[in-house]
Amino acid sequence: MVSVETKLVGLLGYPLKQTFSPQIQNGAFAAMGLDYFYFPIEVHQEDLETVVNGIRKMNFAGFHVTKPNKIKILELLDAIDELAACIGAVNTVVMRDGKLTGYNTDGPGFLASFKEETTLDVTKTAFFIFGAGGAARAVATTLAFDGARKIYITDIVEAASASLVADINSKFPGCAEPVPFDVNQFPEFAARSQVLINASGVGMYPDLKKTPLAKEHLRKDLFVADCTYNPAKTQLLLDAEELGCQYMNGKGMVVNQGVVAFRLWTGVETSSKILGDIFDKCAGSL
Amino acid sequence: MVSVETKLVGLLGYPLKQTFSPQIQNGAFAAMGLDYFYFPIEVHQEDLETVVNGIRKMNFAGFHVTKPNKIKILELLDAIDELAACIGAVNTVVMRDGKLTGYNTDGPGFLASFKEETTLDVTKTAFFIFGAGGAARAVATTLAFDGARKIYITDIVEAASASLVADINSKFPGCAEPVPFDVNQFPEFAARSQVLINASGVGMYPDLKKTPLAKEHLRKDLFVADCTYNPAKTQLLLDAEELGCQYMNGKGMVVNQGVVAFRLWTGVETSSKILGDIFDKCAGSL
Repeated sequence: MVSVETKLVGLLGYPLKQTFSPQIQNGAFAAMGLDYFYFPIEVHQEDLETVVNGIRKMNFAGFHVTKPNKIKILELLDAIDELAACIGAVNTVVMRDGKLTGYNTDGPGFLASFKEETTLDVTKTAFFIFGAGGAARAVATTLAFDGARKIYITDIVEAASASLVADINSKFPGCAEPVPFDVNQFPEFAARSQVLINASGVGMYPDLKKTPLAKEHLRKDLFVADCTYNPAKTQLLLDAEELGCQYMNGKGMVVNQGVVAFRLWTGVETSSKILGDIFDKCAGSL
Repeated sequence: MVSVETKLVGLLGYPLKQTFSPQIQNGAFAAMGLDYFYFPIEVHQEDLETVVNGIRKMNFAGFHVTKPNKIKILELLDAIDELAACIGAVNTVVMRDGKLTGYNTDGPGFLASFKEETTLDVTKTAFFIFGAGGAARAVATTLAFDGARKIYITDIVEAASASLVADINSKFPGCAEPVPFDVNQFPEFAARSQVLINASGVGMYPDLKKTPLAKEHLRKDLFVADCTYNPAKTQLLLDAEELGCQYMNGKGMVVNQGVVAFRLWTGVETSSKILGDIFDKCAGSL
């Protein structure tokens, strides 16, 4: 039963109707025997500061931040973790003694998922990332922090890929390289890479047949990742599966970002197994 | 499971370690099948405005207010119910479309409890109230609004009883009358009354032997009420029981104020039986 000891954790975004996070985090709190309570708080950017000020004076351990507040939140924090600052977006905030520190667990979630699925050494690996939006920024920057040998980035908005490359290279000179958004040039960069990551959203509903790289340019020794989990297998992953590639969808990223956030709020290590099982139940009820 | 549809209800006060309200209200929400969640928010007066501003932007149906915030809250509301305004304290706030309206359910809780216990007609009854603090203000003012024939009020702080009497009489001329805080004068006013109400806290722990009116001045046809429920029987109620008086303690007041607050937040009628049973379980675990 909730009491004055119960630590609150919010999810601040809009809309939140579709989120699984309350089930996942509350399920994990219960599994670990922790007196925490996670609940969604629908809030628009213009009200974010008012809500955050209120939260500072309540018994919160922290909160998740999602669209449209991941960037706006930066100006409301007392401190920002180095990785989150470089990504330029915060999805997890920890409150200690009324002070708020922002983190980004999306990128670490991807990285943890990647390491669960493959033994590839990030420092010896070249990545080709489709997309330079929020998810791509988190993934690419985290890979750079983890020592990635090379990160190629392309986006239909070339200013976005250029900006992401510049942000990464300002910390890790020469690590990232922009790829022109030109399908004729993609095969060359795929050939130079060991891992393909689709962080562009291409292939999501309703354009389920779309894929960022034609099947003929895939090869068996590529590791192929898609940041979406709905559908569970995008056309890109179906093609990768058919060719016998190792691949993963975005479930592991979501689940592991939750594991990292859980650790930040509670100091307790849970597991992607615990959160993943709850995730599967929720996804099964879609 | 909590979702974006779940209506939140807070309890704003400090300290809140001892409160039963989350168990009672959450138990009643469950019993009535309502998707509401009640939780305590420890907040001091100086942070009340910040917290209330945050609450305005979240999915709250309203909140309870308790010490030390029942008066401070008045200046933060958009509207105040007439009874609460006359009492000068708000313990229940309803939020609709971001607008906050303040009510006082302590007095109506007492009145509902009184009407469960006796068929006495308030309009034909004279009441003698010990105390002029928060509980007494709520009870006396509500009785006046309900048409009480006469309300005698005494308090060790004579300015407090004078002020309460003046507030009541400004709306209901001649209804209330101050009684000097002089034990020699109490018997006379007890003799003129049909109901005695101890709202002074006299007889609570640790002074369990104290009583506001010596046993010799009680009589069998008095209805005797004590606003405390801990102890379940104060010395005053023990004396009343021994004389064969009808009597009640403060449990019914607490339970019924919860019933009234529940109705204000949800629009749904629950019952003092449902809330009372939960209250008993909580009190049993003390």
